[in-house]
Amino acid sequence: MPDLFAALPDAVSVYEVSPRDGLQNEPGIVPLEGKKRIIRALAAAGLKRIEATSFVSPKWVPQLADAGDLLAQLPPPDGVTFSALVPNEKGLERARESTLPEIAVFLSSSETHNRLNTNKSVDASLDLFAGIVPQAREMGIRVRAYVSTVWGCPYEGPIAIDKSVGIARRLVEMGCYQVALSDTIGVGTPKQTKEIVQAALGELAVEQIALHLHDTRGTALANVLVGLELGVRNFDASIGGLGGCPYAPGASGNLATEDLVFLLEGMGLQTGIDLDKLIEAGAIAEQVVGRILPGKVHQAGAFRLRKAP
Amino acid sequence: MPDLFAALPDAVSVYEVSPRDGLQNEPGIVPLEGKKRIIRALAAAGLKRIEATSFVSPKWVPQLADAGDLLAQLPPPDGVTFSALVPNEKGLERARESTLPEIAVFLSSSETHNRLNTNKSVDASLDLFAGIVPQAREMGIRVRAYVSTVWGCPYEGPIAIDKSVGIARRLVEMGCYQVALSDTIGVGTPKQTKEIVQAALGELAVEQIALHLHDTRGTALANVLVGLELGVRNFDASIGGLGGCPYAPGASGNLATEDLVFLLEGMGLQTGIDLDKLIEAGAIAEQVVGRILPGKVHQAGAFRLRKAP
Repeated sequence: MPDLFAALPDAVSVYEVSPRDGLQNEPGIVPLEGKKRIIRALAAAGLKRIEATSFVSPKWVPQLADAGDLLAQLPPPDGVTFSALVPNEKGLERARESTLPEIAVFLSSSETHNRLNTNKSVDASLDLFAGIVPQAREMGIRVRAYVSTVWGCPYEGPIAIDKSVGIARRLVEMGCYQVALSDTIGVGTPKQTKEIVQAALGELAVEQIALHLHDTRGTALANVLVGLELGVRNFDASIGGLGGCPYAPGASGNLATEDLVFLLEGMGLQTGIDLDKLIEAGAIAEQVVGRILPGKVHQAGAFRLRKAP
Repeated sequence: MPDLFAALPDAVSVYEVSPRDGLQNEPGIVPLEGKKRIIRALAAAGLKRIEATSFVSPKWVPQLADAGDLLAQLPPPDGVTFSALVPNEKGLERARESTLPEIAVFLSSSETHNRLNTNKSVDASLDLFAGIVPQAREMGIRVRAYVSTVWGCPYEGPIAIDKSVGIARRLVEMGCYQVALSDTIGVGTPKQTKEIVQAALGELAVEQIALHLHDTRGTALANVLVGLELGVRNFDASIGGLGGCPYAPGASGNLATEDLVFLLEGMGLQTGIDLDKLIEAGAIAEQVVGRILPGKVHQAGAFRLRKAP
């Protein structure tokens, strides 16, 4: 019998993506005040790392065109780090103007997905980042990276693990402090997750690995569990599961932060996050976007004792 | 590093509860023809063990008042075993009249929950089953048992694992071939699941243990994974997640059979179930009950390759 949980860390860091990854996928544009309400509620719940917005061109992501204004109007609370997505040098310049301490770069390990998403080959994306990442570090800006479609691509199907892990290694070599291996379409199952994380552990230090899992097919927390068992302590999540496709009722994308924290708390792992306040933040996010969010704990609530009737 | 999946069995048996556990919780009464459509579709997908109905009094569960007619009109396809819930001697007599090969008895390990659900103390329920189970076996009827609220009770909170496991052992001693340890309100997390399954393994053979998990807080498949790692190969599930509270949009109860099979397939485990046909069965169930079912794979579909546009 395997010794489950023997390798569990005591503390887990949750990286909150909802203000960027969630809101950029909303059909409507959330007003700046609504974004500030969500981010303040997330910070109040104890989240310390929040991807607040994106410097992708407003032509492509009009939902986050107010990135500069948001960061100017909302100084991060004490102890909270804001980050923003940066696609190119122009984005890096905007991040510097906003005195952001951290940015995130992104590409897909699937050639087709990367071309459709960024109009570049994987090599061209890596060449671009080989220019940007060292520049950012000279500016004193930390860089995180996303590698998308690691568990599978909607166009190419399975992606060779070596390819994804090789990309992750190159990103770390450029100076990225952490790479979020991403199950972009939510197809991951635990055996595959074990193979991916073990391969990544062959090339990266465990603290350089984050898992960005989607719960599209209900497997996100099972994959989190595999990551935990292998020592990973960095996980991405989105309040209420914000970022699912809003056109399919109940269909979800991002792992909900409340669900992740519910699991982590139940395993005795420390997150520094108050689940009750997190659930309040989810209620605020739902109010702001004006649609029912798919997160499970968001909908069911945390377990609370009740008196017998 | 623990040797994950070292103990994985090659084959897993899925026990389908939707026609009973799902339909008894629907606000409306599904017509007999609709029930037959669902059950035929489940069998066509490869499910071999189906809890088809209940002999609980129609006063309490009017949704399944047609149990006798259903079983009379729908002979089980070759290789498929139907079961039905039996609360008392009268239910056993009805099961015998229907020439059922298998029944299921049930109680909660929480005194409060058991009293509210069955109007009996836990000991009184066990005394009742001590009479029924040997009778059933003399009739050539196999008996399965449910122990509810093992992961927690909405009224009493946590339930001592020893109490639940002691009840399970008594049920096996009476002659039940398998006990479904049930996370009735869907609050289980992996550490707790490990403790429960390990305690059960101290008293029961692994094939006598089934896990009946709810996905109310997104943790069902993580808990399945723990069970798999500890050698459990029997899991309950409900097509589309049928059986969630229909009044809370998207809130789910039973683990969806499609989600379970998606995970098991991805781990290379054999179920004998065709996932595509299972998804068709979920579409039929949704049509029959007339509301959107919460299962994730049901809503998102299985992963299928697409051509690049």
